[in-house]
Amino acid sequence: QGILERLDAGEIVIGDGGFVIALEKRGYVKAGPWTPEATVEHPEAVRQLHREFLRAGSNVLQTFTFYASEDKLENRGNYVAEKISCHKVNEAACDIAREVANEGDALVAGGVSQTPSYLSCKDKTEVKAAFQKQLEVFMKKNVDFLIAEYFEHVEEAVWAVEVLKESGKPVAATMCIGPEGDMHGVPPGQCAVQLVKAGASIVGVNCHFDPETSIETVRLMKEGLQAAKLKAHLMCQPLAFHTPDCGKQGFIDLPEFPFGLEPRIATRWDIQKYARKAYDLGIRFIGGCCGFEPYHIRAIAEELAPERGFLPEASEKHGNWGDNLSMHTKPWVRARARKEYWENLKPASGRPYCPCMSKPDGWGVTKGAKELMQQKEATTEQQLKELFQKKQ
Amino acid sequence: QGILERLDAGEIVIGDGGFVIALEKRGYVKAGPWTPEATVEHPEAVRQLHREFLRAGSNVLQTFTFYASEDKLENRGNYVAEKISCHKVNEAACDIAREVANEGDALVAGGVSQTPSYLSCKDKTEVKAAFQKQLEVFMKKNVDFLIAEYFEHVEEAVWAVEVLKESGKPVAATMCIGPEGDMHGVPPGQCAVQLVKAGASIVGVNCHFDPETSIETVRLMKEGLQAAKLKAHLMCQPLAFHTPDCGKQGFIDLPEFPFGLEPRIATRWDIQKYARKAYDLGIRFIGGCCGFEPYHIRAIAEELAPERGFLPEASEKHGNWGDNLSMHTKPWVRARARKEYWENLKPASGRPYCPCMSKPDGWGVTKGAKELMQQKEATTEQQLKELFQKKQ
Amino acid sequence: QGILERLDAGEIVIGDGGFVIALEKRGYVKAGPWTPEATVEHPEAVRQLHREFLRAGSNVLQTFTFYASEDKLENRGNYVAEKISCHKVNEAACDIAREVANEGDALVAGGVSQTPSYLSCKDKTEVKAAFQKQLEVFMKKNVDFLIAEYFEHVEEAVWAVEVLKESGKPVAATMCIGPEGDMHGVPPGQCAVQLVKAGASIVGVNCHFDPETSIETVRLMKEGLQAAKLKAHLMCQPLAFHTPDCGKQGFIDLPEFPFGLEPRIATRWDIQKYARKAYDLGIRFIGGCCGFEPYHIRAIAEELAPERGFLPEASEKHGNWGDNLSMHTKPWVRARARKEYWENLKPASGRPYCPCMSKPDGWGVTKGAKELMQQKEATTEQQLKELFQKKQ
Amino acid sequence: QGILERLDAGEIVIGDGGFVIALEKRGYVKAGPWTPEATVEHPEAVRQLHREFLRAGSNVLQTFTFYASEDKLENRGNYVAEKISCHKVNEAACDIAREVANEGDALVAGGVSQTPSYLSCKDKTEVKAAFQKQLEVFMKKNVDFLIAEYFEHVEEAVWAVEVLKESGKPVAATMCIGPEGDMHGVPPGQCAVQLVKAGASIVGVNCHFDPETSIETVRLMKEGLQAAKLKAHLMCQPLAFHTPDCGKQGFIDLPEFPFGLEPRIATRWDIQKYARKAYDLGIRFIGGCCGFEPYHIRAIAEELAPERGFLPEASEKHGNWGDNLSMHTKPWVRARARKEYWENLKPASGRPYCPCMSKPDGWGVTKGAKELMQQKEATTEQQLKELFQKKQ
Repeated sequence: QGILERLDAGEIVIGDGGFVIALEKRGYVKAGPWTPEATVEHPEAVRQLHREFLRAGSNVLQTFTFYASEDKLENRGNYVAEKISCHKVNEAACDIAREVANEGDALVAGGVSQTPSYLSCKDKTEVKAAFQKQLEVFMKKNVDFLIAEYFEHVEEAVWAVEVLKESGKPVAATMCIGPEGDMHGVPPGQCAVQLVKAGASIVGVNCHFDPETSIETVRLMKEGLQAAKLKAHLMCQPLAFHTPDCGKQGFIDLPEFPFGLEPRIATRWDIQKYARKAYDLGIRFIGGCCGFEPYHIRAIAEELAPERGFLPEASEKHGNWGDNLSMHTKPWVRARARKEYWENLKPASGRPYCPCMSKPDGWGVTKGAKELMQQKEATTEQQLKELFQKKQ
Repeated sequence: QGILERLDAGEIVIGDGGFVIALEKRGYVKAGPWTPEATVEHPEAVRQLHREFLRAGSNVLQTFTFYASEDKLENRGNYVAEKISCHKVNEAACDIAREVANEGDALVAGGVSQTPSYLSCKDKTEVKAAFQKQLEVFMKKNVDFLIAEYFEHVEEAVWAVEVLKESGKPVAATMCIGPEGDMHGVPPGQCAVQLVKAGASIVGVNCHFDPETSIETVRLMKEGLQAAKLKAHLMCQPLAFHTPDCGKQGFIDLPEFPFGLEPRIATRWDIQKYARKAYDLGIRFIGGCCGFEPYHIRAIAEELAPERGFLPEASEKHGNWGDNLSMHTKPWVRARARKEYWENLKPASGRPYCPCMSKPDGWGVTKGAKELMQQKEATTEQQLKELFQKKQ
Repeated sequence: QGILERLDAGEIVIGDGGFVIALEKRGYVKAGPWTPEATVEHPEAVRQLHREFLRAGSNVLQTFTFYASEDKLENRGNYVAEKISCHKVNEAACDIAREVANEGDALVAGGVSQTPSYLSCKDKTEVKAAFQKQLEVFMKKNVDFLIAEYFEHVEEAVWAVEVLKESGKPVAATMCIGPEGDMHGVPPGQCAVQLVKAGASIVGVNCHFDPETSIETVRLMKEGLQAAKLKAHLMCQPLAFHTPDCGKQGFIDLPEFPFGLEPRIATRWDIQKYARKAYDLGIRFIGGCCGFEPYHIRAIAEELAPERGFLPEASEKHGNWGDNLSMHTKPWVRARARKEYWENLKPASGRPYCPCMSKPDGWGVTKGAKELMQQKEATTEQQLKELFQKKQ
Repeated sequence: QGILERLDAGEIVIGDGGFVIALEKRGYVKAGPWTPEATVEHPEAVRQLHREFLRAGSNVLQTFTFYASEDKLENRGNYVAEKISCHKVNEAACDIAREVANEGDALVAGGVSQTPSYLSCKDKTEVKAAFQKQLEVFMKKNVDFLIAEYFEHVEEAVWAVEVLKESGKPVAATMCIGPEGDMHGVPPGQCAVQLVKAGASIVGVNCHFDPETSIETVRLMKEGLQAAKLKAHLMCQPLAFHTPDCGKQGFIDLPEFPFGLEPRIATRWDIQKYARKAYDLGIRFIGGCCGFEPYHIRAIAEELAPERGFLPEASEKHGNWGDNLSMHTKPWVRARARKEYWENLKPASGRPYCPCMSKPDGWGVTKGAKELMQQKEATTEQQLKELFQKKQ
């Protein structure tokens, strides 16, 4: 059954977690470029991570094609070996995802995300061409549906949806925005409306903000759709990091990004609470993004097991709310084998010399980078960088 | 070259990280029992983790045989499928480790750890028999050397060393104790002396405490050895969790163990500092235990690259002290591409409603569990549990 | 010169600090009732506190008549000795304030605050009568001007201003609200407009929120006045407690109120920053409320000394930004004798087992208590209490 | 009844709180010099603070003569007006303390503390002469007993006790040390033994460390006395600041000293716990030092009211464990009117951008300053300062 059949039938669809952060820790992705050449260089590592998400309950395996548009890979230039073409990376990603999906009951989703071309103010045709190129691979490899994700500007997201829509496959669209809206100031409700009008059947958010903030953003999207009398399925794939101190542009501006985020990592219980809240709001495509490890995805599947009627395979190695601790030798550890304990635990950081919140870096851009460039303040990405530097 | 040839030549030997915690998050180990049946059930997952550690710089791959003694596996009884014999689990562990070790320049170490038999006051003969059984597999599979690790009582650790020593292979011995010493109150210095006298060529600590505390314990061991005019190589494999608030029995008593430890996870920079301190103290076998992921091991290898003269394979995907951030779009993120930044960062937890330290659970046992039993207060593990419960 | 002459001439007028909290710690006020019978029982203690504020730079001494309306004192019934009449308390408060004001260059302000009568849904006439009674004392004792302060409902505040205005004396009006507005949901801008239209020459906020939040509220008031093309002087008298975690009803709902607020107490440097921000926004009547001790008021006077051209008397015992530490024996303490040090210090709590923020208690009343009663859900304060209890 | 009669009879004697910190906040003492010229300049402020402590339950009023030795006042040279002689300051301090003591049931204690002379390596005769001069005033004014307090070196403390002992009046001696002992490394137990042998009838600690640490130090003193079969009454007057992160030299080295200590201030409940612990250890002279405000002293008196059989006067304005909140309007505030609530509250700092602990400044002097000088590294205080600076 396809993604829309499932959602239309009221099923809960569980997404997967974050590849770039997980594979960076495992040694296969470079922080900074964040490109997915591992699909060619180390397919066994990518395959294993897909498999872990599948075991954990993912119904959708996203091809590991993040930042795999040609302009992005070029941009990161000297870093990726010449011989690894964008095309080859994308194809390998599709093959690996399909191989693992076939081991279970999962769909394969091909994904595109925001492009350097847009930020550099290339025109609509050029930006759309980038998406078109990636789409060709997805069509050739016959993915089950498409996701336009990680967009900071709804304008570009709409262009992506328009391209993907032409394929005839179902299209989901998620933006990496918070309750304040996109980088041009378009509020979440309006973003959702534009995306649905462009052809997206599923809308929501991914990345950049923690679960709580992301659910609030989806709530605003839902309100916007209701006000416009539009219908669409809702989707949420947030960070597995706590980011109450984020500014409008999300966790990238936090001083801890990307190499000091450990103390912010969500526990499995945080994620169970997220899954419940998402469900209660009516979100039915529930997954994760950066920071989500297999056990976080399993937490979604376990929280919603009563509604779904089954547990994921990996739950054979996990007790409900810690109940496997009941066989621990120490009685005070056995006393932790219950829901109330983990639900109410306020976990200590073990870092008494560190604060609880940080001030985001950056100069609090309220207008989008693109808009700045349109105002003739900058016309190339290079100029934008210089402008940033000057304003600092 | 064998482990002792390397250490005698002044080489730095890098250990690997923690299997049970990492594989629990990946969905292959059950918290509570913590047993390694994954070597038989999901060899590809175990193989992949070994491979990641190897890529990250590990010179030693420990067989995934933690808690794989017969009495332990029996103890966890109904949980492990009958058909998976202790023997099979241990053999598979050796085969997988050797297979991956052969992909690079690594040694395979067979490991034994403390037994339920000892805690239940079985006598020396019976406890030694348990070690003997595991040793047979290691000899058959011809591991390169042996590690007796995770002992809370030096008495049992000495028995283990005595058994392992008979094999003729080099023996390392690490205890899971802090500066206050073992559960009977034997100080670290005396523990080290006893272990060396029993035949260990390498001594140190593993698990239970964070890097800082563990280094302090090894320092006390070193002092003890110097006072006794004994020579041995020093080894350290601590937690990758911050545990300044631990009591004598380590992180298991912390309220966050084992499902709320996320905010305590060490950053790669914490681990670089640890590697440097360990090196400066004269420790030459430097690895990790619970919480150590491949990128933590890579951090050791990168910190000590100047001394060793080379970087690990996985460093192709990692810049020195974040220098790969220099190609980031945002100038304030580019500003993080330097050592001073990450070295001085005090990472925020993103959890303003949580504390920084916890009070350990338990009733502050100052005498060892075994001693209690010897005092006739309890004669079986079951009675001990009841005693614990009563005293609570 | 009167208050309006000073403000019209562009002078900065410095208010005083919080009497009930300071005198509670000194042993003369009872937390809970918070009534000012100390003016009769221990005039020397009240006099001394006034004197300290005067020395610290206060240009206005408020009579210590908080909660001294007849209905309030009655309400606290058995507690205050029968023989101490409301009248006597108010008169003594005026005499003491005047006596100390005459020792320096300060004005005496008589103050009224919200009444139990209003909360119990007594009608306008009855509520106004309560203010009228207090006003008679202020007129007899000839205070220099009047302040209607600590109002949660702008409706009642307007009634108070109307009563006070008839006296012919200048009237200031401050509400204990945050940016979300009054308990009926009237936004700060509209509150300010209504108060000015009722006759207040000075408007702003006092109590309930920390300096940062309070300044934001005054900013909204200023915007409201500008939009309505009304003119008034701005005033701010916030808490000297950090309350970023407050809900709409302020610090009373925080679990730490009133006996565990210590870790939230502002440093003198926090207050200097507040004074600067308040000044920059155009606020010219700058003081404090609960938590403000004499040294906090001195911090306002010192921060604004460049603008005012003089230091307060108490600065003879205080160096500028800690410069008196330059004569300390220890060089590392001497190194603290500079502005940059104190400005950037992030003071530690010394409480690693405590969190940084709290969840406010209460059931998140979004409608005002009075409104609830008007909806016939409760008609007396007693009924309201029962209603609260039931809803809990 | 004298101090010894009371203690010998098993009475609990309650000390007073910290004058320099409290009067600094009130505007009468300058941080840095910390000298007590306010006794002459503003006697009414000193009198009022004495009175508040008396009301709060203090049985002992210490003359406000801290740092009032001639050499200290000279040292602070230009600061104190020439006309205020050391003699006059000390005499006024005695008169004020006696005047207030006569208002209730309190004793007057004359105090001496460590001298610059000692630190500058003046010899025994010269140091003793400084104490002698202060003692003359105390004898002339006929104080009830004498306290040698705030000594970092037991050698100097012993000299002080020897001088005071000659007066024939009872002598108490407290050092500002922690469990690690004095600045020369003399452990607390030995310090206590030396002080008792020199003639002190009461020994203990004051200042520099928080209640918990101070009680631990007194415990070590008690052990030392027991081992030496010596008898003496125990005394404790700690900080009212939380200082778990202090080094050997106490809170002065903390980065927050002296102008950012607010988040560390103890609540009244912290102090009640301290009073109970002190009592349980057998300490019978229980008071406070820097940071102790009148309400902290009241907390001691209230905690020990069951043992003493009466409450202090100021308790007429304070309910037992918050019970006066039972008349609050909001039910959730009324719910705080009970011991369990306040006992278990973990008060939030309201400062999510600040850490919980700090690293002390300084270069971790393990040898005492005096010793350094004796090693010919420095012979005057000036040289010592330079030495410090060089070593930094």
